[in-house]
Amino acid sequence: MTTETNLKTDFEILLQQKIDLKTKPLGALGLLEKIAFQVGKIQQKLTPKLTKPTILLFAGDHGIAQSGVSAYPAEVTYQMVMNILQGGGAVTVFCKQNKIDFKTIDAGVNYTFENIPNLIDAKIGFGTSNFVETSAMSENQLQECFLRSAEIVKEVANSGTNIIGFGEMGIGNTSSASMIMRNICDFPVKECVGRGTGLANDQLKRKIKILEQADKLHGKINEPLKILQTYGGFEVAQICGAMLEAHRHKMIILVDGFIATSAFLIAQAIDPTIKEAAIFCHNSNEIGHQKMLQFLDVQAILHLDMRVGEGTGCALAYPIIQNSVAFLNEMASFESSGVSNK
Amino acid sequence: MTTETNLKTDFEILLQQKIDLKTKPLGALGLLEKIAFQVGKIQQKLTPKLTKPTILLFAGDHGIAQSGVSAYPAEVTYQMVMNILQGGGAVTVFCKQNKIDFKTIDAGVNYTFENIPNLIDAKIGFGTSNFVETSAMSENQLQECFLRSAEIVKEVANSGTNIIGFGEMGIGNTSSASMIMRNICDFPVKECVGRGTGLANDQLKRKIKILEQADKLHGKINEPLKILQTYGGFEVAQICGAMLEAHRHKMIILVDGFIATSAFLIAQAIDPTIKEAAIFCHNSNEIGHQKMLQFLDVQAILHLDMRVGEGTGCALAYPIIQNSVAFLNEMASFESSGVSNK
Repeated sequence: MTTETNLKTDFEILLQQKIDLKTKPLGALGLLEKIAFQVGKIQQKLTPKLTKPTILLFAGDHGIAQSGVSAYPAEVTYQMVMNILQGGGAVTVFCKQNKIDFKTIDAGVNYTFENIPNLIDAKIGFGTSNFVETSAMSENQLQECFLRSAEIVKEVANSGTNIIGFGEMGIGNTSSASMIMRNICDFPVKECVGRGTGLANDQLKRKIKILEQADKLHGKINEPLKILQTYGGFEVAQICGAMLEAHRHKMIILVDGFIATSAFLIAQAIDPTIKEAAIFCHNSNEIGHQKMLQFLDVQAILHLDMRVGEGTGCALAYPIIQNSVAFLNEMASFESSGVSNK
Repeated sequence: MTTETNLKTDFEILLQQKIDLKTKPLGALGLLEKIAFQVGKIQQKLTPKLTKPTILLFAGDHGIAQSGVSAYPAEVTYQMVMNILQGGGAVTVFCKQNKIDFKTIDAGVNYTFENIPNLIDAKIGFGTSNFVETSAMSENQLQECFLRSAEIVKEVANSGTNIIGFGEMGIGNTSSASMIMRNICDFPVKECVGRGTGLANDQLKRKIKILEQADKLHGKINEPLKILQTYGGFEVAQICGAMLEAHRHKMIILVDGFIATSAFLIAQAIDPTIKEAAIFCHNSNEIGHQKMLQFLDVQAILHLDMRVGEGTGCALAYPIIQNSVAFLNEMASFESSGVSNK
């Protein structure tokens, strides 16, 4: 949720009063009060409801992985997709535990999945091009990413979901996210690069060097779609398109960690009003994520030193959001309970 | 969970291996991995289970409230107990949402509750004495607190609960907690005193002055039970006794905010092994709580800027603990899933 304060509408004044008159010291539910306010405001209801929460996981491979920027081999992308489809990934366990609908999308994995009923096919290609040599994708491919993911989100919205989170899987995608951050936030490359899935010091140095090389090749880019085309993975671009479509359906958007937030950086550069719909779920342990959140001037719900991706932060933050809505709807007020206010 | 590292037993090595071989980068689930390890260790099981989670809320009044240390009048204690019994309090909403059993105990409220079936009667008196004049309670009353709360916890343990949290309600009890902290941690009084339910600057100054007066009267006390007798509320003493009893039943102990942690400070001074069983649920916005956690060398799960008490932090952290256990039990390993490890 944003930390900005704006002039409040009549509805927002009523909503804030409802929160303030609950039987607790003023402001004592902290961040939960901000979440309750934001959810009420998005839905324009004093008694908001969360319906059919859903997390979509987009997977894709990255040409940049060929340059050796990750601690894991590229085939881990498809292997993890298979693992997730079988329910063995962290995000699938958390979604099951927290009763969140979950879908996996092949945005562009370098593998031919055959006869897999649970996997949504939105494949743009067998991985992006290596952005240290050329643009990660063509303009057509980027457009295709937006179209395919918007279709998926539209279907989810039509099924009754009003709160949606996005996860990713793609070996090499912290490199993609770092370069998006570098161009949107205008930070030096090295301030945007972290250890990803667990690089050692010398590997981290190498990753920075490769990304600085890419930065030199493409130069500073200002146009958000051009940044995404140059550096984005297919899964990152699809998440960006999915977020924008979710916002068109007035859904609550759950933003996960470093890579999902890089997709959000592009989305908010295209449509700044999306920030009002976004709940930032956790503060990732990947260096750079904290700076992204500062750049956006937002506060994340959880600080659990996690760096898994997959939408795990969204899945874990969801119960806190449920509890925020529950207190708004179910807690007594000073008046209804007869408790003395100050 | 504690941040200390000790030599690991064979069982602990196996438990850590199980966590390390899950399909995620090493350590990438952060705090959830530490919680999973701790729960497994407490239960001495590689596949631990959480059964019948329970929060007990102890309520009591405080003589010190007569000195004007709180933003709310003392009758708010019994009014809030009534509100909580009717399901209108924050903690009751969160317990319902997160499927946690909840019980309310009259440890010493200054009110005669008549014919209230949901309220457990463990009343020691109609509020403590004012510790700015004399000891808050007698040695007998303190013993009675321990006996009564141990009985209640024993019954809860016998009903199948293996994870238990403790909440409190008692106007004036941040003063009690501050003085316990001052004596256990040996910090100056003013570093232990905060705004409680929302004091203004001049009221805070007055609270500090009153507590410094009490500190002068009683002098520095070293014996933990004597500290509790001198400053403790009946609810604080019952929570302390309840924690020690829960530890005897090898339960997981959920520690809430400032006041519950003050009870824990006494409990761990009596039995240092209780720290291994304790999960610190949230970092309260009450100044002093962060310092208590630093003193104990522990890390809390949630940072939500809350200062409600009642056990709300325990109720909100519980889903994170459930998810920690779920990943340990349900996530695939690199071997079982065929995902390539580094």
